[in-house]
Amino acid sequence: MNTFEISPFRLEGDVWLILDQTRLPGTEVYLRPETKEDIWHAINTLQVRGAPAIGIAAAYGLWLSVKDFTGSMEEFAKTLQAAKDYLVTARPTAVNLAWALERMWNTWRKSQPCDIITSKDLLFAEAKKIYEEDVAACKAMGEYGLTLLKPGMGILTHCNAGALATSKYGTCLAPIHLGQERGYNFHVFSDETRPLLQGARLTCWELQKSGVDVTLICDNMAASAMKQGKIDAVVVGCDRMAANGDGANKIGTFGVAVLAKEYGIPFYMYVPTSTIDLSTSTGADIHIEERNGEEIHKLWYAEDMAPAGIKTWNPAFDVTDAKYITAVITEKGIVRPPYTENLPKVFK
Amino acid sequence: MNTFEISPFRLEGDVWLILDQTRLPGTEVYLRPETKEDIWHAINTLQVRGAPAIGIAAAYGLWLSVKDFTGSMEEFAKTLQAAKDYLVTARPTAVNLAWALERMWNTWRKSQPCDIITSKDLLFAEAKKIYEEDVAACKAMGEYGLTLLKPGMGILTHCNAGALATSKYGTCLAPIHLGQERGYNFHVFSDETRPLLQGARLTCWELQKSGVDVTLICDNMAASAMKQGKIDAVVVGCDRMAANGDGANKIGTFGVAVLAKEYGIPFYMYVPTSTIDLSTSTGADIHIEERNGEEIHKLWYAEDMAPAGIKTWNPAFDVTDAKYITAVITEKGIVRPPYTENLPKVFK
Repeated sequence: MNTFEISPFRLEGDVWLILDQTRLPGTEVYLRPETKEDIWHAINTLQVRGAPAIGIAAAYGLWLSVKDFTGSMEEFAKTLQAAKDYLVTARPTAVNLAWALERMWNTWRKSQPCDIITSKDLLFAEAKKIYEEDVAACKAMGEYGLTLLKPGMGILTHCNAGALATSKYGTCLAPIHLGQERGYNFHVFSDETRPLLQGARLTCWELQKSGVDVTLICDNMAASAMKQGKIDAVVVGCDRMAANGDGANKIGTFGVAVLAKEYGIPFYMYVPTSTIDLSTSTGADIHIEERNGEEIHKLWYAEDMAPAGIKTWNPAFDVTDAKYITAVITEKGIVRPPYTENLPKVFK
Repeated sequence: MNTFEISPFRLEGDVWLILDQTRLPGTEVYLRPETKEDIWHAINTLQVRGAPAIGIAAAYGLWLSVKDFTGSMEEFAKTLQAAKDYLVTARPTAVNLAWALERMWNTWRKSQPCDIITSKDLLFAEAKKIYEEDVAACKAMGEYGLTLLKPGMGILTHCNAGALATSKYGTCLAPIHLGQERGYNFHVFSDETRPLLQGARLTCWELQKSGVDVTLICDNMAASAMKQGKIDAVVVGCDRMAANGDGANKIGTFGVAVLAKEYGIPFYMYVPTSTIDLSTSTGADIHIEERNGEEIHKLWYAEDMAPAGIKTWNPAFDVTDAKYITAVITEKGIVRPPYTENLPKVFK
């Protein structure tokens, strides 16, 4: 995977450009965020999305918030803390946002006392480290994940937990990209993933770029694809995994898991350790973001598709109960049930 | 339900206007079909859709094919048969299309010998009878169906098996409309039903008109709605039911049935006897229409939502195995498993 180039970030020294994913697949435009507000807006409006990518963007945003700071160290600390408290509000469900910001904050605190220039430098270095560690984590998940798959398999995925959702390679799509390089000839089925169509727009885009055989289906066709024997494995990402193995991911993931169980198809959730939240005991404690109903009403840049004034319910995520998850793939290895016992081991 | 007025047909003597459902919910336009080709096109492009409504439209189309006929009785018979063979090709899955055309044909054949004017009159009368019997069947299904539901229930439906899919009232939405008149205060959740959004465009439109509390969700949200206890029953229509109780219906229905089973929620399929096809032994023998992938790619009148050249799979229907169906509601009563034994009884 040395030549693999798909990424939502383009690092040019201390200028990090962000691919505007709301414009895909039609247009490839890079944003040039200059303030923490730019980063907050990019995360909030899904210009950058996917748990690991959000963490990376937030880390960079925290550095942006103090990049041009002049003043006392006391004011610096206040500015940094305010930016952290602000950025964490951009989206509620993915734990990586808080995780990356806390990591940045703790790195800086531990370095004290030091001067402002050094503070800025180490914050930038830490953001870059978060990015680079994610690249390595995705590569590792790709290798571990590939041991669970066989050449020629039909693989269903939901939403986009690919290169576009991370630094590079992706979480659950890393083994697909890797397999492509190694001649595995997977047949991937991509749920379009309503309402915002990350599967249609993003997964299809990146798999097509990577040369993978990918077929786009509507979310409600997954059951028929399984019934007809088209699917040998399901791979999905995760936005937050609780200590018991319950995993929040894009709305619709959980329904796919129930169907996979019914058909005896393995359901693999790809969860970098930065996405495991041992302080949350079960999925019931995960805050599920509810987004504007217009995302359902009005198709992407299109006209109304439902009567005016219709009530909607638009949860952005759901929680897949641990019992439906065959295995959790992390960058440190594959975790099998019981998760309450086995998840903490990956942190040792 | 005496004042209930929602219908895809407006009968003005021998001129039957058809509501163009591709324009809903934004625009209410009635088509004025004048030839069998107009009817074929209306069925094929989903301007009129829903198994019972397709049957009614086809019956009217068969009459239109001979309405202005002049010539010999032999030529009349040939014209009629050619029109029947043509109209049946408009869509493959719903059995009502063939059922209505066969019924028209058989009625005419049994009447022979008679003259051409009489032939035309009895064909028109039979089309009207098919329409009127469907009104009565829907009313009856509404009453039977209501005995399975309790006031205040949360009810999930998929696609549109409502007034718009029939002559009036609907199949699975008949008890909802009826319950609304009787103060049942149902909370209906309408799957948007990709790719053509019949739930968002049609079910929401007609339930909102009827004053029902309806909430629009994306198809992939049904699992979460069930998990959160929002759903007490699932009601759906059917396009063709095999002798063993396997029921083909809009793509996505089957996935909902699996989820309902997982949560112990009753799954009710509304199937007028005109939709039961005892000559088809199981669901495996039902021909599933596959439609143009552009329906997934391009949102309704909108821009591309997936990369150019992406492969798609676009089955329009799926088959719900009999084992997932709690009960089949027909106009002659409620049928419980075992279906192979009990379905034929409704024809006696």
